[in-house]
Amino acid sequence: MAHRFIYTDRVQFADTDMAGIMHFANFFRFLERAEHAFFKSIGLSIAEKKDEVPDGERVGWPRVHASCDYHAPLQFDDLVEIEVLVEEVRSKSLRYIFRVRKEDGTLCAEGRMAVVCVRKNRDTGRMQAVSIPERIFSKIEPAPADLLKWPPPPNKIDA
Amino acid sequence: MAHRFIYTDRVQFADTDMAGIMHFANFFRFLERAEHAFFKSIGLSIAEKKDEVPDGERVGWPRVHASCDYHAPLQFDDLVEIEVLVEEVRSKSLRYIFRVRKEDGTLCAEGRMAVVCVRKNRDTGRMQAVSIPERIFSKIEPAPADLLKWPPPPNKIDA
Amino acid sequence: MAHRFIYTDRVQFADTDMAGIMHFANFFRFLERAEHAFFKSIGLSIAEKKDEVPDGERVGWPRVHASCDYHAPLQFDDLVEIEVLVEEVRSKSLRYIFRVRKEDGTLCAEGRMAVVCVRKNRDTGRMQAVSIPERIFSKIEPAPADLLKWPPPPNKIDA
Amino acid sequence: MAHRFIYTDRVQFADTDMAGIMHFANFFRFLERAEHAFFKSIGLSIAEKKDEVPDGERVGWPRVHASCDYHAPLQFDDLVEIEVLVEEVRSKSLRYIFRVRKEDGTLCAEGRMAVVCVRKNRDTGRMQAVSIPERIFSKIEPAPADLLKWPPPPNKIDA
Repeated sequence: MAHRFIYTDRVQFADTDMAGIMHFANFFRFLERAEHAFFKSIGLSIAEKKDEVPDGERVGWPRVHASCDYHAPLQFDDLVEIEVLVEEVRSKSLRYIFRVRKEDGTLCAEGRMAVVCVRKNRDTGRMQAVSIPERIFSKIEPAPADLLKWPPPPNKIDA
Repeated sequence: MAHRFIYTDRVQFADTDMAGIMHFANFFRFLERAEHAFFKSIGLSIAEKKDEVPDGERVGWPRVHASCDYHAPLQFDDLVEIEVLVEEVRSKSLRYIFRVRKEDGTLCAEGRMAVVCVRKNRDTGRMQAVSIPERIFSKIEPAPADLLKWPPPPNKIDA
Repeated sequence: MAHRFIYTDRVQFADTDMAGIMHFANFFRFLERAEHAFFKSIGLSIAEKKDEVPDGERVGWPRVHASCDYHAPLQFDDLVEIEVLVEEVRSKSLRYIFRVRKEDGTLCAEGRMAVVCVRKNRDTGRMQAVSIPERIFSKIEPAPADLLKWPPPPNKIDA
Repeated sequence: MAHRFIYTDRVQFADTDMAGIMHFANFFRFLERAEHAFFKSIGLSIAEKKDEVPDGERVGWPRVHASCDYHAPLQFDDLVEIEVLVEEVRSKSLRYIFRVRKEDGTLCAEGRMAVVCVRKNRDTGRMQAVSIPERIFSKIEPAPADLLKWPPPPNKIDA
């Protein structure tokens, strides 16, 4: 049962804007990559393929909420550590908290995301919320309260 | 004194992802464009140029918070109307609410943004929060409460 | 029969990078938008919908070549005029030239794109090149040689 | 003296479009990351910082040409190997060839880029082409002709 993952990435030139820092919208791309890497770390895929999961059982994870609080800017080539924390597991949805830190431990941003488990309805052809399949549900649990509390510990996350 | 603006744009092919809809992070680019268009509509620029505003008086608007609640997907070529509402005007910061609607009036997303007015400190070379200059402050006011209340009116925003 | 179209757009904050100018990769997004607007201007869509074109007749336009020569930078809020020229019409492919100009007529970039008409093969499920359907082919022609010649006229495109 | 580098990356969800594959413009972001990683691999930075290189000596590398030939699509989560080859070293400019391969060796794209070495003119404040500084010039050489020839070897690049 997983509830935490550390994803590492680097700010690319194309992530910056004319203010010389990572554009605020690009933080959400980093959060998503961290979320996907978390899924991968427990043998799951955010975009299941036909040869992995039978037709009619594949699910998707559209976002119903995303937010970010920005505490310090990120610059080109900064090494970034994103701590993924599962905040809540419900029958049809998940909530995440993301803590974005620089190499020196500075907390640059805290993100949140709520995602819903959906599957295409065979009759209507429309996406509808469904229970998270057991193969996924059984692998994810909410993080303990002390990991979720604010403010997070000031030092390096893996110190 | 302005507190509301309607920005119109269209979802581009490059805004979509393999789920066939606009990628959730791209909504924030649309919110920002709406914010910039609002500033422009009242004779302001989000990125003041040297020949417009003297050195030492130019300010920037980094985000300290951005969020989006997603209610319905947007697809390629959808015409999008974004209603910009000034939620709060403080001495050094502004808060916005954005309502993203499709042509038929469907509310697809509600966004929020908090931005801080900053200027480069001549001594330290670092950005610091400063009072919003009068030339800007005098043009912006918070929207009346009935425009901000939730849920927003169900029909087309300019019906 | 169309061979030329003028698309107008504006450089957004998120299109810039830390060098203070539009990131070179974003020019290609502008070229694509111009291409799509050209299609739209003659009643076509680059992404045909199920209710517009019957199953088995819809085609897609993957790129096989894209290039850009950069002559002058574009900056935030620059108004951009992109001249779309059909360079060549073949049975299964099209070639475009794009001229990107600022409001003052400065030629900032010249782009090129080659796109292939494809349709999903019902048996293999794979995309394969097919003849451009008559409903599209009958509407597009190559631009006259004098419009394609290099260098293009120095002044404003619609002067 | 370096002339070749292998950069590895992975296609992210946000890199895809509604056609289900990596958007053609995003290939250029990958090429740039590969270029930057090549510079880094020989102790250089594409965006030199004030504490690394004295004022008046820092240079930038705007693109004057970028192109890509697309041979096969890339999909979400594909592992990508990009072979960076220095095609030409001139006094004020460099040319690169990039070969983008999937894990199974499939050549998905071949990119090209020409970049110019520029420095801000102290008097005019404008960027102008300058000779590549010796600290950079001494580290880069053109790749041998057999590495540049087309078509490239069919198998895995490091097989």
